[in-house]
Amino acid sequence: MAELSKESGVPVATVKYYLREGLLPPGERTSRNQARYDDAHVRRLRLVRALLDVGGLSISEVKEVLAALDSRKAPVHAVLGLAHQGLPLAGAEIGAGDREWARGRVRTLLAERDWDCAEDAPAVEALVGVLGTLRSLGHEELAVVLDRYADAAERIAEADLDSVARLETAESIVESAVVGTVFGDALLVALRRLAQADASAKRFG
Amino acid sequence: MAELSKESGVPVATVKYYLREGLLPPGERTSRNQARYDDAHVRRLRLVRALLDVGGLSISEVKEVLAALDSRKAPVHAVLGLAHQGLPLAGAEIGAGDREWARGRVRTLLAERDWDCAEDAPAVEALVGVLGTLRSLGHEELAVVLDRYADAAERIAEADLDSVARLETAESIVESAVVGTVFGDALLVALRRLAQADASAKRFG
Repeated sequence: MAELSKESGVPVATVKYYLREGLLPPGERTSRNQARYDDAHVRRLRLVRALLDVGGLSISEVKEVLAALDSRKAPVHAVLGLAHQGLPLAGAEIGAGDREWARGRVRTLLAERDWDCAEDAPAVEALVGVLGTLRSLGHEELAVVLDRYADAAERIAEADLDSVARLETAESIVESAVVGTVFGDALLVALRRLAQADASAKRFG
Repeated sequence: MAELSKESGVPVATVKYYLREGLLPPGERTSRNQARYDDAHVRRLRLVRALLDVGGLSISEVKEVLAALDSRKAPVHAVLGLAHQGLPLAGAEIGAGDREWARGRVRTLLAERDWDCAEDAPAVEALVGVLGTLRSLGHEELAVVLDRYADAAERIAEADLDSVARLETAESIVESAVVGTVFGDALLVALRRLAQADASAKRFG
């Protein structure tokens, strides 16, 4: 375990905690107080650490992502859907009026774009929650960006799919899709800040 | 306080907690155990609740956003920059090799796009951290999306600026920019999931 800690850069106490929480499979026991860990353990440790630190996921959310990653029998589209289920989306408690208004906006958007997704998908609920919250805060003017955001999201999703489609095994496609979805969010957030700073400098600077 | 709780939908114990944490300014004291709260308190309470629940921010991150929101004296571009400083970005601890590689990628991106931003801006550091983490996880192939993401980010930032530029006072521009930046991230994340589901269904379904 000392070697595993050194190789991965994760402290021994943290490795033990991940083992207890089931975020890391146990090593192969070689004696009463020794176990053998392999490269898969190092990779998994780095992934867990990164999902917690960069992805900002909670321990239980990391468990869901790993479960999606480890269930590798279904066809690619189904497993990608499962991985999505495991990825966290913010929830919101909003009033019935705001929810109805938001649901109408989302329904129109999905119909106009002919997006193929279940009406009770977690991302649909998340979208309704965010739009409804904007309205409850008196900022429904921000919903005007929705269509242009959706255009951008389509381009982003095409880039995402191109990036995973060039991989060879279903296993690597799914791992890359999960990692790419979580870290892609973080990439986009950072790029959006930089592009905003540039646009603001050019317009108001 | 009972009325404030009822109006905002936030439990009294939570309102007291926000007051102690300085997330909500104190009401105007009218007697030893009564205070008057106004519409600004209701709005602020809803915003705090939404930043925590939908934005997924921590208490201390909410404090930073509110501080950015309340500092309204500088010119618009400067205040937008200040607001950005207060907005949270994920951090990452990565090795020197991965950091150097990532910094090179980011420097090239900024130069090619001629984006007007400081090389030590928090979003630049965030971008370096995410890219470096992807490489440390053995997923540097995901960096191929960077240019297409940056194209999308430019379109998104233009939509963001158009949306705030139509507002009249500097005060409302800044509030809308802060709210739009935090909730815009959540909108994008949800839309990206939906667009991915659609693209995956069409390609692999």
